[in-house]
Amino acid sequence: MEVYLDNSSTTRCYPEVKEVVIQAMTEDFGNPSSMHKKGIEGERLVKRSKELLAGLLKVKEKEIVFTSGGTESDNLAVLGGAAARKRAGNHIITTKIEHPAVAEPVKYLEARGLCVTYLSVDKRGRISLKELEEALREDTILVSIIHVNNEIGSLQPIEEAAAIIKKKNKNILFHVDAIQSFGKYRIYPKKIGIDLLSISGHKFHGPKGIGALYIHEKVNLSPLLFGGGQQQGIRSGTENVPGIAGLGEAAKKVYENFEEKREHLYCLKKKLMGSLEEIEGLVINGIADPITDTAPHIVSVSVEGVKSEVFLHALEERGVYVSAGSACSSNKKRTSETLKAIGLSQKLLDSTIRFSFSEENTLEEVTYTVRCMKEVIPVLRKYVGR
Amino acid sequence: MEVYLDNSSTTRCYPEVKEVVIQAMTEDFGNPSSMHKKGIEGERLVKRSKELLAGLLKVKEKEIVFTSGGTESDNLAVLGGAAARKRAGNHIITTKIEHPAVAEPVKYLEARGLCVTYLSVDKRGRISLKELEEALREDTILVSIIHVNNEIGSLQPIEEAAAIIKKKNKNILFHVDAIQSFGKYRIYPKKIGIDLLSISGHKFHGPKGIGALYIHEKVNLSPLLFGGGQQQGIRSGTENVPGIAGLGEAAKKVYENFEEKREHLYCLKKKLMGSLEEIEGLVINGIADPITDTAPHIVSVSVEGVKSEVFLHALEERGVYVSAGSACSSNKKRTSETLKAIGLSQKLLDSTIRFSFSEENTLEEVTYTVRCMKEVIPVLRKYVGR
Repeated sequence: MEVYLDNSSTTRCYPEVKEVVIQAMTEDFGNPSSMHKKGIEGERLVKRSKELLAGLLKVKEKEIVFTSGGTESDNLAVLGGAAARKRAGNHIITTKIEHPAVAEPVKYLEARGLCVTYLSVDKRGRISLKELEEALREDTILVSIIHVNNEIGSLQPIEEAAAIIKKKNKNILFHVDAIQSFGKYRIYPKKIGIDLLSISGHKFHGPKGIGALYIHEKVNLSPLLFGGGQQQGIRSGTENVPGIAGLGEAAKKVYENFEEKREHLYCLKKKLMGSLEEIEGLVINGIADPITDTAPHIVSVSVEGVKSEVFLHALEERGVYVSAGSACSSNKKRTSETLKAIGLSQKLLDSTIRFSFSEENTLEEVTYTVRCMKEVIPVLRKYVGR
Repeated sequence: MEVYLDNSSTTRCYPEVKEVVIQAMTEDFGNPSSMHKKGIEGERLVKRSKELLAGLLKVKEKEIVFTSGGTESDNLAVLGGAAARKRAGNHIITTKIEHPAVAEPVKYLEARGLCVTYLSVDKRGRISLKELEEALREDTILVSIIHVNNEIGSLQPIEEAAAIIKKKNKNILFHVDAIQSFGKYRIYPKKIGIDLLSISGHKFHGPKGIGALYIHEKVNLSPLLFGGGQQQGIRSGTENVPGIAGLGEAAKKVYENFEEKREHLYCLKKKLMGSLEEIEGLVINGIADPITDTAPHIVSVSVEGVKSEVFLHALEERGVYVSAGSACSSNKKRTSETLKAIGLSQKLLDSTIRFSFSEENTLEEVTYTVRCMKEVIPVLRKYVGR
């Protein structure tokens, strides 16, 4: 049995996504900047995708910019936002549990003199709105908060956060990294006061190498890439038409039968969590009550006495693919800031694995996975004990 | 008849490219950062592509970094190179006929205080090596030269340029924008003293949204994007595995029967140029003797008394797709720096169209195109005359 439970790392493309990508690679392959029919075909695909995405987010088409993926979207929001607003102040607020695609550009700015407040989280992985409110300053120019954390699935109250930020000063840019949450939640950034929202195609059965950034029409960002002036100059470079078309199609598909799919994911999550409770010395990270206070697709588990890498490979031998912490970063080992932030004990930091579901997973797969875990944990513990 | 003569804007993907892209989207879809089998499958595709490309360029695998396309490759070379070398000096040399993906980041740096020398070109669109030599200074940190110009197909003596630059100071970074030349020339950057070389997948029948930058192993660049630390930290973000696999496959394919293909392109070019000479008031831009001193696939033509946009649409109506100037930039009109640099008269600047071939074009298509031109030019001239 092959069970892919690493959907927060990446997902398989929908068959319909494959079809539109092929169409754009081999038939409607024109450069949208070309003025002839072939170019117009390419442009039409870009426009369709923009319409689909704008419709789902309830924003204007011109507020969508396509990027090369989540990392570029996050970097454009943070670096481009800070650069554009630098005359207004020198202070940024973010959390201790951001993805590196936000955390690293923030560090880059901090090293260049910007002042950064890192919001802490409780053991569920949630920020405190009171702490956010107190952190806001006269010179705050940007707040960046991850909607669903990629390692433990904790969910932030972005709507309440937006209200607090905008009450303080409506010019503060509010960026939300929605890379793990798009497709799992209905998100209307403009309605709730979010200025910038990042998404990534391959996290919801779209292509890799394509992402988008919602940019509120009144917000100016400094571009990161300069060139032909495509996408209103905010993101130069020939549009990745097949990727853009694929992203639009995936976004449309993932929101079809949406409630049903989300229910299914919570069902898988509950089943997994319930079964794991029987295993001694196993901790589930970032639990919240009710379960709907956490994302439907992510379960983080620490197993005493078992190294995550060893555990991962033991499961892999049985056809079960999971992640050691977050696979969104490179292979090289680094201690998880998120797990430290929720107060996980030192000895469990290296003993944590992540399960992440997609709509394609089944209850049978979860049952099989639990059986495998119950088989391998005692064996692995013996080895470590020696 | 449908004749696509806008291959310098973008090309149709090879069927084999389509196949590897599909495979990577639907089967070997893992995230290369994942440690399990699915991740390793993805990583293997990246590695294969790196091997293919490194083999063709005769460089090391670790000297290849994948980007989101030509624009990012050029920006990373120019901005990342200048940032990394800023302590060594404050002077950059480039040409007056760069693509905006180099020209715009250079302008960005110039606006921030860097000193820039723009090399002029003769009427063939060629720089003077003497001028280059004289422009080199003690504080020169970077030279960026386009190998084949995208608008007129002029070819620069990059090997001789490299020798001159490296003789002056081996620490000066030499970047070559090879986006129009890769696949048309055998290029061995390391052998001839190039430190940075940009290529773009969709210019040689690979996917859009993927490019590469060769970076000499001794060169450090400052990254433009920060995050998970993929690609040795020089380019964070989940690798676009389908795009990377497609780029590798396209690179392999384009160099199969290479001499034959290039001969075919020159054959098309000669045929077109020969037939166009008969048309009165028509100028071919950037002619050099022998013809092999210019790129095999680009012919730029200015037609007195005919606006390029009108001309383009008249040809489009007959199924012939060409470009008005360069379509690598956005739709918005701008006067061509390249055409100005070669001294084209003011009245012809707006009357220029570009034909660009690929290996898929035929002599019959060229014959048909010339027939169409001879038909439409007198008609269009009459209209303008009124």
